Amino acid sequence: MVNVTIWNEFRHEKQHDAVKEVYPDGIHHTIASFLQDDFEVKTATLDEPEHGLTDEVLESTDVLIWWGHMAHEEVKDEVVEKVKKRVLEGMGLIVLHSGHFSKIFKTLMGTSCDLKWREADEKERIWVVNPSHPIVEGIGEYIELEKEEMYGEHFDIPTPDELVLVSWFEGGEVFRSGCTYSRGNGKIFYFRPGHETYPTYYNESIQRVIKNGVKWAAPTKREYPVYGNAKPLEEIKSK
Amino acid sequence: MVNVTIWNEFRHEKQHDAVKEVYPDGIHHTIASFLQDDFEVKTATLDEPEHGLTDEVLESTDVLIWWGHMAHEEVKDEVVEKVKKRVLEGMGLIVLHSGHFSKIFKTLMGTSCDLKWREADEKERIWVVNPSHPIVEGIGEYIELEKEEMYGEHFDIPTPDELVLVSWFEGGEVFRSGCTYSRGNGKIFYFRPGHETYPTYYNESIQRVIKNGVKWAAPTKREYPVYGNAKPLEEIKSK
Amino acid sequence: MVNVTIWNEFRHEKQHDAVKEVYPDGIHHTIASFLQDDFEVKTATLDEPEHGLTDEVLESTDVLIWWGHMAHEEVKDEVVEKVKKRVLEGMGLIVLHSGHFSKIFKTLMGTSCDLKWREADEKERIWVVNPSHPIVEGIGEYIELEKEEMYGEHFDIPTPDELVLVSWFEGGEVFRSGCTYSRGNGKIFYFRPGHETYPTYYNESIQRVIKNGVKWAAPTKREYPVYGNAKPLEEIKSK
Amino acid sequence: MVNVTIWNEFRHEKQHDAVKEVYPDGIHHTIASFLQDDFEVKTATLDEPEHGLTDEVLESTDVLIWWGHMAHEEVKDEVVEKVKKRVLEGMGLIVLHSGHFSKIFKTLMGTSCDLKWREADEKERIWVVNPSHPIVEGIGEYIELEKEEMYGEHFDIPTPDELVLVSWFEGGEVFRSGCTYSRGNGKIFYFRPGHETYPTYYNESIQRVIKNGVKWAAPTKREYPVYGNAKPLEEIKSK
Repeated sequence: MVNVTIWNEFRHEKQHDAVKEVYPDGIHHTIASFLQDDFEVKTATLDEPEHGLTDEVLESTDVLIWWGHMAHEEVKDEVVEKVKKRVLEGMGLIVLHSGHFSKIFKTLMGTSCDLKWREADEKERIWVVNPSHPIVEGIGEYIELEKEEMYGEHFDIPTPDELVLVSWFEGGEVFRSGCTYSRGNGKIFYFRPGHETYPTYYNESIQRVIKNGVKWAAPTKREYPVYGNAKPLEEIKSK
Repeated sequence: MVNVTIWNEFRHEKQHDAVKEVYPDGIHHTIASFLQDDFEVKTATLDEPEHGLTDEVLESTDVLIWWGHMAHEEVKDEVVEKVKKRVLEGMGLIVLHSGHFSKIFKTLMGTSCDLKWREADEKERIWVVNPSHPIVEGIGEYIELEKEEMYGEHFDIPTPDELVLVSWFEGGEVFRSGCTYSRGNGKIFYFRPGHETYPTYYNESIQRVIKNGVKWAAPTKREYPVYGNAKPLEEIKSK
Repeated sequence: MVNVTIWNEFRHEKQHDAVKEVYPDGIHHTIASFLQDDFEVKTATLDEPEHGLTDEVLESTDVLIWWGHMAHEEVKDEVVEKVKKRVLEGMGLIVLHSGHFSKIFKTLMGTSCDLKWREADEKERIWVVNPSHPIVEGIGEYIELEKEEMYGEHFDIPTPDELVLVSWFEGGEVFRSGCTYSRGNGKIFYFRPGHETYPTYYNESIQRVIKNGVKWAAPTKREYPVYGNAKPLEEIKSK
Repeated sequence: MVNVTIWNEFRHEKQHDAVKEVYPDGIHHTIASFLQDDFEVKTATLDEPEHGLTDEVLESTDVLIWWGHMAHEEVKDEVVEKVKKRVLEGMGLIVLHSGHFSKIFKTLMGTSCDLKWREADEKERIWVVNPSHPIVEGIGEYIELEKEEMYGEHFDIPTPDELVLVSWFEGGEVFRSGCTYSRGNGKIFYFRPGHETYPTYYNESIQRVIKNGVKWAAPTKREYPVYGNAKPLEEIKSK
């Protein structure tokens, strides 16, 4: 059974009525509700001690899902370092929407992770460009969202290991919306949709992509590589 | 004319006779000597003010070459941040050998950049696996180095955008020795060989790869992308 | 000086007045007109003997540009084989627009190269997603074409080595419009725009991308790799 | 349950005593023996009618494993076309060892698939370079084979989508030994080891990689993409 921890900043939902209306218990609970049949699910939020990401929680997490936006700077550097260490050790990481600007995503990517954005209640159509990828199992040719925030290129990320989804926006932009990376022994999936004022995480295709993402990002079980000074495996004749 | 700045830690050459013998004026001068006919070349070293990397130097550098080893931790974080900013803006970066553990490489990669290593005077044979890549123009099927330090897999780097060279070592290991990346608007080339006790940078094929690398990493001239809030390019009907 | 051969099917221009009006001397001549200041340019067309691609022409071509549409099946298999051999040897290949369905592109890709399409005089906006790539030197954030044929995903190609440009279409689709590949010692660039009824090849940004593409695809000069039975480079102790 | 068909040329085992001794019932049976607990396994061989790959067999195959060597040319083009069609539709394909020169692999790759080779009873050490990949689950840092045929670079394949394993050979060469590709809706895994005169397929780590490969290559379940003329999804204002 894959152990999933859903981390949510959980501020918008408390401070803005428009968000509370859509996600009354917080985005993390909505995400938990569609994952809990398939996975062992926990949640964690910014305002808990250690942001809910204690050593114990991190050690027992196979895949961490991350949603943050208005309080990226409040996430403590030492927690970010611990999460990064766990990713390099093999923990999967799914970064959602505005998490593109989280400390953890930026430090794993090495770039600014900047982009264009616009809140204009516009239509998004997310196209599958990699039909054999397990992350789009059960997904049609595209996912249509009637209203979403726009994110547009250039998206300042490293070249994805795999580009799975590309968004079309009504206002004229495109965006690399489903991107995978490996870092160390861990797998990372960035998935664009999910602005806090829209019911995106109630959409069944969006839910399916996240579910597939958890399965894909689950750790590959093998010994951690050995680094440092190494004895020769073969005789060195030159010496 | 491409402006190249060669940065060298320049400590081994002052402290260890064995190194001084091979590179009496420092590795940076040896590298400068084979680049200066084709490029406008400057050098900079750790012990200069701001490590020789003032704003003026960085602004006028098209491609920065980086050699460091024993004093990575002495490189100031604010200089690393400036170099990173310049790479994202478009400056090319060539990281040599033990520079794999430099602050600038690690922050651009997002991983530990760890590896296996061994100093055993062993043979290295660097094979070309990407024959159409401009970085191997004029290079034969492989480059043979009679004695080098071994670097072995697993090398904890992100999947390279392009894998150009793979090393065979006498002691039984392999290594991804020529790797390219893009980060923001900048191009990065990691090139493995060049331990300070061996005359590797006098080898003509090694020199040719570095020359080709500079040409390849030179900035692509175009406007910096625009980030942030963006007006729609098309009318949004849904509103 | 890079030797460029522009191959054009050259049928639409003779048979359809609407096309003749836009490209009176053929698409190949329009392309030649903006390349001839920078490169040594020849043209070749389907109805010439051997389609204009004699051994002599192919041997002396550094980069071949390919435009075809209504007569893909008339291209002789032996000519396709010769072109493929030359690409594997190092000749660059730029495939334009409907060339996606040419025999040469399909045999080099190994897939159906199928896609969605629509002729509806709609707007295309081609976004740069790889700002450091030399193919987009001098290009703005996007290229806008008032009217073009739509090509939409899924585009059945292998994962590009580099994805440089992504198109937005007014009718709701996206498309991977600028894709690079290496095959053997040769570099390949697929560039989407250029339907025969629109003045796309008069657009200066489109011209710039094709010019940059030629420079990028020019052969890397080195010995052809040696294949087949190989003597050991090191003593084999096990024997 | 994943349906696996193991295709073997099955000629060496009948004609050469040295091979018969190692694989008395044929390589396909040895492979079947370690896959049958986890998958629904069938076998097929060259000399059966339609090479054992009837429409019925292909339709019901999720992952096809391919071993061939001395009789590549005897495989009928129409069977190759059917297998290719099935791969593009989503069937997984695992190509082993000398299958690099099979018609099916070459047509899916678009290159010569040529390489260096040597039969010298030499040691091979296959290193994991992609520790998070599911294909190396349960595999140590490397797999050591006391005696194998050497395959050396340059291996004339397209850049792999993912490079998972790299071989070191005693005689001085390296090789990209574990490579993945997607073609259409299908996933392809090339895995180098398995010369007919060595007991390579009895090695437990080799068996584990093939098992993992089958799981990885199993079809992603979704509707086949729609190609061809497409109605606009949005109103086209320009018309």
